[in-house]
Amino acid sequence: MNVLLCPDSFKDALNAEQAALAMAKGVKRAMPTATLTVCPLADGGEGSLDALIAATDAERRELTVQDALGRPRQACWGWLRQQRTAFIELAEASGLQHLSIQERNALHTSTYGVGELFKAALDEGAEKVLLLLGGSATNDAGAGMLQALGAKFLDRHGSPLPPGGAALQQLATLDLSTLDSRLATLQVEAAVDVDNPLLGERGASAIFGPQKGASPQDVAQLDRALGHFADICVEVLGHDDRGLAGAGAAGGMGFAAHTFLNATLTPGIEMIMQQTRLPELLAQAELVITGEGRLDGQSLAGKTPIGVARAAYQHGKPVIILAGSLGDGWQACLEEGVTAAFALADGPMSLEQALPRTAELLEARCENIARLWLAR
Amino acid sequence: MNVLLCPDSFKDALNAEQAALAMAKGVKRAMPTATLTVCPLADGGEGSLDALIAATDAERRELTVQDALGRPRQACWGWLRQQRTAFIELAEASGLQHLSIQERNALHTSTYGVGELFKAALDEGAEKVLLLLGGSATNDAGAGMLQALGAKFLDRHGSPLPPGGAALQQLATLDLSTLDSRLATLQVEAAVDVDNPLLGERGASAIFGPQKGASPQDVAQLDRALGHFADICVEVLGHDDRGLAGAGAAGGMGFAAHTFLNATLTPGIEMIMQQTRLPELLAQAELVITGEGRLDGQSLAGKTPIGVARAAYQHGKPVIILAGSLGDGWQACLEEGVTAAFALADGPMSLEQALPRTAELLEARCENIARLWLAR
Repeated sequence: MNVLLCPDSFKDALNAEQAALAMAKGVKRAMPTATLTVCPLADGGEGSLDALIAATDAERRELTVQDALGRPRQACWGWLRQQRTAFIELAEASGLQHLSIQERNALHTSTYGVGELFKAALDEGAEKVLLLLGGSATNDAGAGMLQALGAKFLDRHGSPLPPGGAALQQLATLDLSTLDSRLATLQVEAAVDVDNPLLGERGASAIFGPQKGASPQDVAQLDRALGHFADICVEVLGHDDRGLAGAGAAGGMGFAAHTFLNATLTPGIEMIMQQTRLPELLAQAELVITGEGRLDGQSLAGKTPIGVARAAYQHGKPVIILAGSLGDGWQACLEEGVTAAFALADGPMSLEQALPRTAELLEARCENIARLWLAR
Repeated sequence: MNVLLCPDSFKDALNAEQAALAMAKGVKRAMPTATLTVCPLADGGEGSLDALIAATDAERRELTVQDALGRPRQACWGWLRQQRTAFIELAEASGLQHLSIQERNALHTSTYGVGELFKAALDEGAEKVLLLLGGSATNDAGAGMLQALGAKFLDRHGSPLPPGGAALQQLATLDLSTLDSRLATLQVEAAVDVDNPLLGERGASAIFGPQKGASPQDVAQLDRALGHFADICVEVLGHDDRGLAGAGAAGGMGFAAHTFLNATLTPGIEMIMQQTRLPELLAQAELVITGEGRLDGQSLAGKTPIGVARAAYQHGKPVIILAGSLGDGWQACLEEGVTAAFALADGPMSLEQALPRTAELLEARCENIARLWLAR
């Protein structure tokens, strides 16, 4: 018997690795002789860099970069020497989680630190970057990153623009002649979890601006500024990517990655599954158990358990989902290759009671699922 | 595929039949072509008379009898004409649930009404009685029942004793010459869920007296009175059943049933399983799903899901338990032939939120168990 345990994290309770180990412990009790394969996953959001580093044995590097407000902070990135591949997580530099609620500022926050991480990777000899785009504090369409990489953003007086998306309204000259030349041969793959375009009602500013501190007036101002930037990109580069699905990811970083770094945009869970060689593990497994803190109707849009279920279904493998809670509309997941889903609670209990018991409950549920599996 | 659905009730939420139907609905969604057999169960306690009547198509009879305090009440009993078998539930006449908390009175409550039910059954031509002993308000060692059936309990002045266990201390003469002669050939099987003896630290008065309103002084008084009664029984009958496992059931009714009616004492779940022909249904089933409101370490002592699991194990059939909550020590059940157990909650929730959703949650859990079963 070969069982694959590949959960995401259980938010506020266990990271993905802890969750996978708890699952393994439970299955082992029911199937002492089974071969258990543990593969912690992530969906491109929080925890994804850790999942990539853990799955690939990449080196964990640290670097002092600017955070979204220009303050120094230690950021991690991953370096897979043999493949000359770097893992860069936007949120390590420009993440919303590093700002207090009062500090959130969609107008002036910058992705400059992400550019610094790219430079470090290029200095190391990177030929490929996997760029994880979740959790940004920024709405600058990647302008900060490009500035850190040598691009010049000048106003009509020839002065450099200040940081942030709002300043792009003053952009008169975009000078790419000083852009780091190594980018021309760098292969970039960006993990995005949304299909929003750069501009408009479904654009970066309108949809994601408010959670980064933008008022309705700020949203309108940012949408105009990013539109102006896109217009100038057409002039300079001759192509227009503003409508690309995913261009609006991470405050327009999807747009910049594709337009200037020629990045392909991939769903986060797909990137992580590929890097962790999940398809090979699925091919060997007879039973797959995945999970996450919550499963609901929204999970269909790129959440780990559904990505796993779709891939397992292609391999004809049964996949069980365990979730801290099965929320509204979770039944739709049963149409996506999920064999069955179970919640963790062993009776009525509050969230506060459930969280510290997550590992124990996961273990018990997995033991009983494995017993049921064996009984037939 | 042949699936047997045989739960007990889910207390405060669903009776056993409702629970079985919710289970069937869920399984049906996953296995539209399966043969589903529904068999609501009980363990000899609350709901057992209904389960017996439902399972056997017995007639439901009604009779006005005395309740534990001597007041008239309508009591049900079941009549299986073909087998000349009556189902009598002690609690229908002398049940604790018919008294307010203020009315509870272990000293003076009487099982007289149970004797009236026996008389009705004998008048109908009963050759066999199945006697269910859960939920009594009484601690009279069955004296009230025997009085109703013609036995004379006299004090040293030759006057009849008043009702209740405390009065047995005054018993001087036990005259069985006037006892209903039809009892001699009546076959009685009593369902008991406890193995307590009549007297002492583990006896009826000490263990069950307090929940029927007995103070520590009352317990001591009752234990002495029942001991005196047992002494007189030895004189009259020549044998001593005070130490019999189960003699202490229902305030000593186990003792009276065995001593005077020659009743066999059977665990309630065994009696119900036999009457509902569960062994035959188990033999045909490929998967068995049972359940109850709560599963815990105490469930090993005669609760329905464990009775089903032990019987299923003998038939080599997998059995899944669903419970509203899996309480302390429930894992011990896995040693008793239980394949796997799952709780109902689909996330953190209060008991108040869970109860009205019980049917829906049972249905969803059964659907997912059936899907898992089919997947292998």
